[in-house]
Amino acid sequence: MSGNMFYTAKQHGEFEVYELGDFVLEEGATLRGASLAYTCYGKLNEQADNAIVFPVMFSGTHAAMAPYVGEGLALDPNEYLIVIPNQLGGGLSTSPHNYQGTYQANYFPDVSIGDDVRAQHQLITHLGVKRIKLVTGWSMGAQQTYEWAVRYPEIVERAAPISGTAKTTPHCALFVDVFSNALKSDPAWDNGKYQQSSEVEIGLRQMAQIFAMMGASQNFYNDELWKNYGFSSQGDFLKSLWENWFLPMDPNNLLCMAKKWRSGDVSKHSDGDLSAALARITAKVTVISFEKDMFISPADCLKEQQMISGSELVSIPSPWGHFSMLGVNPDDFLAIDSALKKLLKIEV
Amino acid sequence: MSGNMFYTAKQHGEFEVYELGDFVLEEGATLRGASLAYTCYGKLNEQADNAIVFPVMFSGTHAAMAPYVGEGLALDPNEYLIVIPNQLGGGLSTSPHNYQGTYQANYFPDVSIGDDVRAQHQLITHLGVKRIKLVTGWSMGAQQTYEWAVRYPEIVERAAPISGTAKTTPHCALFVDVFSNALKSDPAWDNGKYQQSSEVEIGLRQMAQIFAMMGASQNFYNDELWKNYGFSSQGDFLKSLWENWFLPMDPNNLLCMAKKWRSGDVSKHSDGDLSAALARITAKVTVISFEKDMFISPADCLKEQQMISGSELVSIPSPWGHFSMLGVNPDDFLAIDSALKKLLKIEV
Repeated sequence: MSGNMFYTAKQHGEFEVYELGDFVLEEGATLRGASLAYTCYGKLNEQADNAIVFPVMFSGTHAAMAPYVGEGLALDPNEYLIVIPNQLGGGLSTSPHNYQGTYQANYFPDVSIGDDVRAQHQLITHLGVKRIKLVTGWSMGAQQTYEWAVRYPEIVERAAPISGTAKTTPHCALFVDVFSNALKSDPAWDNGKYQQSSEVEIGLRQMAQIFAMMGASQNFYNDELWKNYGFSSQGDFLKSLWENWFLPMDPNNLLCMAKKWRSGDVSKHSDGDLSAALARITAKVTVISFEKDMFISPADCLKEQQMISGSELVSIPSPWGHFSMLGVNPDDFLAIDSALKKLLKIEV
Repeated sequence: MSGNMFYTAKQHGEFEVYELGDFVLEEGATLRGASLAYTCYGKLNEQADNAIVFPVMFSGTHAAMAPYVGEGLALDPNEYLIVIPNQLGGGLSTSPHNYQGTYQANYFPDVSIGDDVRAQHQLITHLGVKRIKLVTGWSMGAQQTYEWAVRYPEIVERAAPISGTAKTTPHCALFVDVFSNALKSDPAWDNGKYQQSSEVEIGLRQMAQIFAMMGASQNFYNDELWKNYGFSSQGDFLKSLWENWFLPMDPNNLLCMAKKWRSGDVSKHSDGDLSAALARITAKVTVISFEKDMFISPADCLKEQQMISGSELVSIPSPWGHFSMLGVNPDDFLAIDSALKKLLKIEV
């Protein structure tokens, strides 16, 4: 419901809102008076060519990605205008829980990765950006990164998709089905007609448990590595990190993003031919993968990277698996930051 | 309910029933008039030392393991007396769905891997077996294999645990929680008080979906390898293999086995010291692991194998992951059979 206090600046830090107006989605629906929440760091230069676009992952907001922005880091606000756009459906931008009208809550239409990127293109055009130095993002952020590079090759100079694919793999789609079904299995979900998201607590907790099982590696659990990060037991890790993350969220928002994730596919631009779609990319690309990732295997990343001319692959061996991006492990953070620094130094 | 026609010889092939009498479980309950269902192939020799014990996996019966028994195979009935005992709780032996009395259905007590192995020991003693040439089993069958080798070292000459651990790993326990919760999330489960197991169809299907996600490897799905085995789509593979497997089963039986799986731990024999427990083993051990297994990682198998003096590790690279044991892929079947043949040839 629109009263959910989780989706506020108090929880996620201040953000800007760009009015998209009446935004027509790829599936045909019009979100009237739609808006895109975002944050900016740094300033656009005179040539209007120093922008970095950094879209966010499933269930995340600009706040989750902010640690990667800072003086001395790859995403340095002294050098770049860094724009972190929130997803449509993510809770801060127009989303099931805050939309008023016929498409509200469980009636919210299907949103695509392409819709997000078209909305972001509208935003950066409004901001005066002419060329994009780098697009990078993790997981669903990587899906948006690929979409940017394929859809707008003329303005994207560099792209670094991190542990995400241009086309959702069949196994990853199965994973999305599994956690979506877990959420929907809660009778309180009631086909999205719950009154308060907190009623769907059991479903949210079960979804969190599935994310935990797939999100960190087997060896993270079996070697009890949670001990290194302030958790008192495996149960405490599940509750205090994973359940705590999802519990305040709105199920219809989560399911909107999940459906978008599942349908991610840049080959829509080339009649279903993935390799032709990736051949549209003119950006210099570094694909970053996590060796122990159970959402997106290194083999999945490699397969797509090999279809992109002149691209490179960086593989990070962290026991955090898909969630290496959280940078809880300082080595992971440094490895990702270094790969981005290296890419930004390459002349294009 | 006891009327479930799935748990019959018509579905699983003929089997024998050994009457255990009043069987006291490790947790303290007594199953009165308990019985153990099993099949035998071959004959006991005069020295009574040619028996092979081949316990079964979660949700499986003797029928699932029977393909590994045959002339010319490692488990050759011309040479050995091969005993395939069904699990307590597995549906053919005494189980929640067929027990009459105070412990029936949802009141069934917790069963341990140790209970299964003690019951099997009673059975083989009754059959006149003096020494066991080999104990082998897959997954929960591997748990029973370890339990045999640790509990009865004086009679077990060889042991080959296949993709299973002596002590359930924390990640595997999380997996058991995830699929158990999926089953229990169905309101029709009703804390185990359903009238007919078929009422819990949605829960059984969701559990099947989770098994599918974790059971075969990512590359099995992403390279659409189901095409090689007569399935028309990923959805058909999920329905026709995985859902079809679990749909006829009794939820209380499945949850009884799941709890047993989760609590598997031979270190109970050594005050929680796993390495001391495994040091009790005098059998010659070959640990068989599957490289792409998401239930039990090769690292999990390796860690325990290294605690067993004189043991060997065989690793099988199949895309079928944990379900390589099904032998749907002939190479997997041959690799497992060869490893067992090699172990049986070693003098002890």
